[in-house]
Amino acid sequence: MPGVRSMTVFTLPGIPEVEAGDDLAALIADALEAAGETLEPGDIIVAAQKIVSKAEGRYIELADMTPGDEALEWAAKTEKDPRLVQAILDETEKVLRWRPNLLVVEHKRGWVMANAGADQSNIEGAEGERVLMLPLDPDASAAGIRSGLEARYGGPVGVIIADSVGRAWRVGTVGLALGASGVRVMADIRGELDRQGRELKVSIVGAGDEIAAAANLLIGEAAEGTPVAVVRGLDMLDGSQTGADLVRASSEDLFR
Amino acid sequence: MPGVRSMTVFTLPGIPEVEAGDDLAALIADALEAAGETLEPGDIIVAAQKIVSKAEGRYIELADMTPGDEALEWAAKTEKDPRLVQAILDETEKVLRWRPNLLVVEHKRGWVMANAGADQSNIEGAEGERVLMLPLDPDASAAGIRSGLEARYGGPVGVIIADSVGRAWRVGTVGLALGASGVRVMADIRGELDRQGRELKVSIVGAGDEIAAAANLLIGEAAEGTPVAVVRGLDMLDGSQTGADLVRASSEDLFR
Repeated sequence: MPGVRSMTVFTLPGIPEVEAGDDLAALIADALEAAGETLEPGDIIVAAQKIVSKAEGRYIELADMTPGDEALEWAAKTEKDPRLVQAILDETEKVLRWRPNLLVVEHKRGWVMANAGADQSNIEGAEGERVLMLPLDPDASAAGIRSGLEARYGGPVGVIIADSVGRAWRVGTVGLALGASGVRVMADIRGELDRQGRELKVSIVGAGDEIAAAANLLIGEAAEGTPVAVVRGLDMLDGSQTGADLVRASSEDLFR
Repeated sequence: MPGVRSMTVFTLPGIPEVEAGDDLAALIADALEAAGETLEPGDIIVAAQKIVSKAEGRYIELADMTPGDEALEWAAKTEKDPRLVQAILDETEKVLRWRPNLLVVEHKRGWVMANAGADQSNIEGAEGERVLMLPLDPDASAAGIRSGLEARYGGPVGVIIADSVGRAWRVGTVGLALGASGVRVMADIRGELDRQGRELKVSIVGAGDEIAAAANLLIGEAAEGTPVAVVRGLDMLDGSQTGADLVRASSEDLFR
């Protein structure tokens, strides 16, 4: 029927446990092939941050960390492991809030999140002794995956690196686009007229985060092991935007 | 292929301009029929807040508003129409932040949002003289639509009333579930084990908001006029949760 618009999101079940040094574009392509799928122009691939961090070897062994004075102070306040706190502070621009077992920080890349994204779940290694940090530059990670996939499939395609992040004011985490390449993450509708010909005032849609949220519904967090989804049917490619565009400058933020 | 999970989101193009008193379940059912579609058990219908407000006649004529002292003060600070400010304050628990032409408030129902959701776009009436406010009780609105659709289609189905809302820390608005009926808006993964058998700590996913965000990618804001989407393929019905469950109590919020 004319006017029906649709998108489909599907997960790729065949992604193996990711090891440091793995080529994610190749793993995704293999999983696509195993699922009898290919990539179509306009497809957006959403990869969970965790597999990107694993491929990039972003592990920290707590045994290697020597907490400084600031880490010791925050550890005493929050009752967290001081070595873990040091790992968090190493990625942190500013601690914004805290409570027992939680530091909410502004990450050096501008994301506001719990514990700077430091993650101890689904990590191989001695219990609690190994921590996985966020990718150093998720936009670069996304660009690398995109480039590998476009080399194999033609393209153009888009790539988003998604993480589940808590929010002010709302219960529960939602998928956010930490990194992106090739995707119109900000859909600017400034100046588009509404049906009465009046100019719309609310103007920028955080479409990259909405795509990450949509994929997150299927990617799952726990033992499902489906860290990659394909979003098909949106007309939202744009080579000039990145995930960093979704970070509001603290000078423009009324809540920092 | 075993293990592939997928969802499809599609919009319904045949929703007419909504008038006060309209039966939204009937309009949605007619649009489904016109599109050659039906509802399947498990489908989640996402309706834009705006058509719900219109059907419920949530209009305010600014000519009828008499701004009080507090409205006059905020109007002077923000350079907003004092009558509009009074309409906003009438729905407001607390003003949290402001800047010229903007009041960020905690709505009486707990949502933190610009201008308490007061909306002057896509509203018929004299230029700027008519404002559309949020539904009085979007969970009740969602329950009413669900009940009408289940009477026609059997069901069970879920309904979400979605709005585009700005955020702290991030650029752009995203779809949020203001109201919900029949949907597992909080997907609780506390206690699920990760693949190493360690308990996951981050535990509650704001799935209702993720569904609203996914639908929002297609619903659009401007002249497209497709205010309803169907989300198909998720296994996320739950008769006990509502949109209010996604509102974090201010006592548990580190950013109020």
